[in-house]
Amino acid sequence: MALSTRLASPLRPVLCRGLSTPPGPRPALDLAGIFPPLATPFSPAGEVDYARLEGNLRRYASLPFRGFVVQGSSGEYPYLAPRERLEVVSRVRRALPGDRLLLAGSGCESTRATIEMTVSMAQAGADAALVVTPCYYRGAMSGTALERHYAEVAEASPIPVVLYSVPANTGLELPLEAVLALAQHPNVAGIKDSGGDITRLGLIVHKTRREGFQVLAGSAGFLLASYAVGAVGGVCALANVLGAPLCQLERLCREGRWQEARDLQLRLLEPNAAVTRRFGIPGLKKAMEWFGYYGGPCRAPLAPLSPAQEEELRETFSANGWL
Amino acid sequence: MALSTRLASPLRPVLCRGLSTPPGPRPALDLAGIFPPLATPFSPAGEVDYARLEGNLRRYASLPFRGFVVQGSSGEYPYLAPRERLEVVSRVRRALPGDRLLLAGSGCESTRATIEMTVSMAQAGADAALVVTPCYYRGAMSGTALERHYAEVAEASPIPVVLYSVPANTGLELPLEAVLALAQHPNVAGIKDSGGDITRLGLIVHKTRREGFQVLAGSAGFLLASYAVGAVGGVCALANVLGAPLCQLERLCREGRWQEARDLQLRLLEPNAAVTRRFGIPGLKKAMEWFGYYGGPCRAPLAPLSPAQEEELRETFSANGWL
Amino acid sequence: MALSTRLASPLRPVLCRGLSTPPGPRPALDLAGIFPPLATPFSPAGEVDYARLEGNLRRYASLPFRGFVVQGSSGEYPYLAPRERLEVVSRVRRALPGDRLLLAGSGCESTRATIEMTVSMAQAGADAALVVTPCYYRGAMSGTALERHYAEVAEASPIPVVLYSVPANTGLELPLEAVLALAQHPNVAGIKDSGGDITRLGLIVHKTRREGFQVLAGSAGFLLASYAVGAVGGVCALANVLGAPLCQLERLCREGRWQEARDLQLRLLEPNAAVTRRFGIPGLKKAMEWFGYYGGPCRAPLAPLSPAQEEELRETFSANGWL
Amino acid sequence: MALSTRLASPLRPVLCRGLSTPPGPRPALDLAGIFPPLATPFSPAGEVDYARLEGNLRRYASLPFRGFVVQGSSGEYPYLAPRERLEVVSRVRRALPGDRLLLAGSGCESTRATIEMTVSMAQAGADAALVVTPCYYRGAMSGTALERHYAEVAEASPIPVVLYSVPANTGLELPLEAVLALAQHPNVAGIKDSGGDITRLGLIVHKTRREGFQVLAGSAGFLLASYAVGAVGGVCALANVLGAPLCQLERLCREGRWQEARDLQLRLLEPNAAVTRRFGIPGLKKAMEWFGYYGGPCRAPLAPLSPAQEEELRETFSANGWL
Repeated sequence: MALSTRLASPLRPVLCRGLSTPPGPRPALDLAGIFPPLATPFSPAGEVDYARLEGNLRRYASLPFRGFVVQGSSGEYPYLAPRERLEVVSRVRRALPGDRLLLAGSGCESTRATIEMTVSMAQAGADAALVVTPCYYRGAMSGTALERHYAEVAEASPIPVVLYSVPANTGLELPLEAVLALAQHPNVAGIKDSGGDITRLGLIVHKTRREGFQVLAGSAGFLLASYAVGAVGGVCALANVLGAPLCQLERLCREGRWQEARDLQLRLLEPNAAVTRRFGIPGLKKAMEWFGYYGGPCRAPLAPLSPAQEEELRETFSANGWL
Repeated sequence: MALSTRLASPLRPVLCRGLSTPPGPRPALDLAGIFPPLATPFSPAGEVDYARLEGNLRRYASLPFRGFVVQGSSGEYPYLAPRERLEVVSRVRRALPGDRLLLAGSGCESTRATIEMTVSMAQAGADAALVVTPCYYRGAMSGTALERHYAEVAEASPIPVVLYSVPANTGLELPLEAVLALAQHPNVAGIKDSGGDITRLGLIVHKTRREGFQVLAGSAGFLLASYAVGAVGGVCALANVLGAPLCQLERLCREGRWQEARDLQLRLLEPNAAVTRRFGIPGLKKAMEWFGYYGGPCRAPLAPLSPAQEEELRETFSANGWL
Repeated sequence: MALSTRLASPLRPVLCRGLSTPPGPRPALDLAGIFPPLATPFSPAGEVDYARLEGNLRRYASLPFRGFVVQGSSGEYPYLAPRERLEVVSRVRRALPGDRLLLAGSGCESTRATIEMTVSMAQAGADAALVVTPCYYRGAMSGTALERHYAEVAEASPIPVVLYSVPANTGLELPLEAVLALAQHPNVAGIKDSGGDITRLGLIVHKTRREGFQVLAGSAGFLLASYAVGAVGGVCALANVLGAPLCQLERLCREGRWQEARDLQLRLLEPNAAVTRRFGIPGLKKAMEWFGYYGGPCRAPLAPLSPAQEEELRETFSANGWL
Repeated sequence: MALSTRLASPLRPVLCRGLSTPPGPRPALDLAGIFPPLATPFSPAGEVDYARLEGNLRRYASLPFRGFVVQGSSGEYPYLAPRERLEVVSRVRRALPGDRLLLAGSGCESTRATIEMTVSMAQAGADAALVVTPCYYRGAMSGTALERHYAEVAEASPIPVVLYSVPANTGLELPLEAVLALAQHPNVAGIKDSGGDITRLGLIVHKTRREGFQVLAGSAGFLLASYAVGAVGGVCALANVLGAPLCQLERLCREGRWQEARDLQLRLLEPNAAVTRRFGIPGLKKAMEWFGYYGGPCRAPLAPLSPAQEEELRETFSANGWL
């Protein structure tokens, strides 16, 4: 595992300890690029199918992804037991070339469980921890409470922390003020923002320029727009299906070829909506199968698509020239 | 443990198996009455303090509660490890007299984990399982998906299931149609509804009369109103603090003494709001201490009250004549 | 017009002037009872059909309503021109016996327009003004802004003001604190609350007891529950259709016959939902026709029911024994 | 008034009649560029101050705006009487050079009133009508109902119609399907979308390419992002204050100078948020004064800024280098 290619600075081991007195500049964990939030393959009996997972990774190996997110929302992480969560991370770590980052979702509802999971994820080989906002007691999850939660996790984490705000699932948005405060923490590397409020993304970029805080778009639906306002990459469920076009879109954005980028972005909008909002993970997994990956079933209560839904999903891809 | 006093019918063991062909009338698990959803005591170091829990139960023993809910929302169940959840149930079971029901919150995000937890809760001594709606993928949690989830859990559960809808925490409400369909399942005993939509509660009562489905108000804020439209009881966080007045309110409602009931209900509104919406579980635990119970800290990210908040909380109780 | 029967106190003419120095107790405008918020009949060409309106009023005359609301939400008031609004009030005033109250909806978006409309409504014969919360700039409609708005209207109004909170239409709720502050104004008589949050209604009753502030339930769906917590009456769209049963429900509540009241309330829930949330004013008008009233078309963009919707509406009434 | 410069095609007079059989291609009303939605100046007594309005227009004359919106949300149109609305349009028309478009907000709650107002606006000199979604009966405002509403207005309107979706004020969003259907109507020229959902904007662009439907960003907060996905311009409240930078941003976007565009966009985010979401129209008018325009008071219930709010507003402009 070539650590030095994943971290631009050799300072990480030092930085990971004694964070209460940060010894200097932020560790240069470079998040720029596209990350698929990996779907978790299940066997027909509902067990995690690690062989299928590794098969998918082999197929993804040829694509210029920056890395992979394990146990983002698309990974059905709330449906995995803690030991499954860790085993998936270990397997992916072993299967990945050393120059690809592994971001592992380690968020839990309590601060203590989140810290424990984050440390375990680091031990299992994660390069960074993606920490979703706790949300069950959302009425009590003030900016102050969330800020304290993340600060404690960042203090205790041996790997950089990436904030994760996904209001469609959690019903709350990490408040802008909390993001800006946390951006100053040396062990907080950036944010995956799935809310799609492009004004907010621009504000985060604008207000954290000095900190080198990195913004990742949480969906392919607003990837171009996010680049336009200064994001460095994206964690996009659609990358499980259409990884090559998303990497191409990233390249066009980086090279300033906006007209071509727009044409590509627009063709991706409907497929992206179909595998996220419209048909969710069951739709994502179905579409993966059309492109040579293993999709398979979801765990209940996520329900498989009906034949009519499957037809509509397919039409969405073909109408935009992808099938 | 006097099983026969908790279940009016000796049919339970039969009913618990082979539910696909229900042998006759619903098992008569009588839920009528008041249930405190027990707060979970933690030591200053954040460990579950079982001795304090048992101490609180001893103090509650003199009150005419119908039973206790373990690991409802007030129990910080999302902050407990699975083994802690089970241990709490076991301890409460041992501490309870046999004529008190024990309802255990066993909801998880996946159907399989919920079933597993429900079975374990039954083995640990629960009389019924309180199953919260899964909610992380709320966009996919259609009425159909939720209905299937609950039906599978009810099929597999050795103890009756009580539905639990708490939109303030989950961001979704179990749809009325799903409730009505599930009310026909012989192993679904009722619903704890914390949404507070009194029209909906009335509709549930109205449309499930033939099934003997039992409605429990999920908060003391609308307890009288719920009785007025046909609820049989309540699971009220405030009962951790003001158990006697809530049992008195229940008695007044049952006896049709509505004017007295109203006077009492109105005096409970502000304290109830203070220990739920306004100050949450930290407020609930603080107030418990004023009435002789152990409250103690919450697990993070729930934050303790500030002195000003504590003052406001106290004022709420004293202004209504409780302190 | 027998003024003295509508106002229990002869003080009104005095009170209506010089409100900045209220001369004593609140004018005893007694709102206790049931008020239909009258639907506005339109001809097939979309003109207000005053003859049909008067015909409906003749049919309502035999029912023991406390009075009538003109231009509540059920009256399609946002679709009426100012002169139509006033003409409807005049016609209803002339058609009503003197012992029935006329509450006229006079809310507009700006404070100045609301005052102007309120004064005109008073001149047209209204006994009280029902003033909906302005809502277009809802982000700016803080409790303070709304409190000031209502206070200015109440100061300027020659007739008592009834607050009107209807979040399903306005997207905002008049904050509790604003209600409590306004309850102390001598020319604010009460509130019509259509939000259906029974805990809130109880709180308003509880915190305004000294002021003699009167709470009206804004829907038949929670009429019994509202009486249970201390409301004095209801403004119920369903009263356009099922006026007699609603008046009977009111009587049962007043006489403390809660069991009978519950049975009646439950049978009204589905018809009520059908003529409000489910099918809106087009459903209300269609149902009116089955009970001998003129319903007729709505103004666009409110659309007529499809035959399937009409069938469903009818089934709702017949399944509950009303047709 | 040089009509031909405002419309690229002389076909408009023909198209305006007999729309049920559209005679050919859409009238080429070119909306590309920046439009300030003019604030309406009031005297200290609350009367429309037409002289101040004309003064502001004289100051705006040197800026390369595409045109002006009269009675968008920033114009406090819900607080204007119908005659005031028309008089403002007339005055602006007379004050404008012929090469500037005048878009007039003509939306009312009922279809009939909207048609009447639209026709009057056209007679008063508007080039296009900006028609906000009716919203009071939002539960009944289905996509179908809204589609029919707009189609009837577009049929009857002598000038092109621009759809206007502003969920922050109306509490509803014009559904995508309705937008796409209406885009095919020859008298519907485009949409002003203030919701800020950049994925949706991209979808609208993508699905209406053949129709030549024009998308205008409804806020400066997402102007660059909107251009990036294919919008042609913006209606931005902030243009009342910082018109020159917004026109510069537009030019940078058109010329593909994205890096410069981003730098400028980011500096505009906070001032924009301050004069919209944060402090609303009172903030907008206050900021106008600092830049040489007349701002003045709002009509109640919009409240003036407190000194502390004014300070915060000013700081927002100065911290970003505008003051």
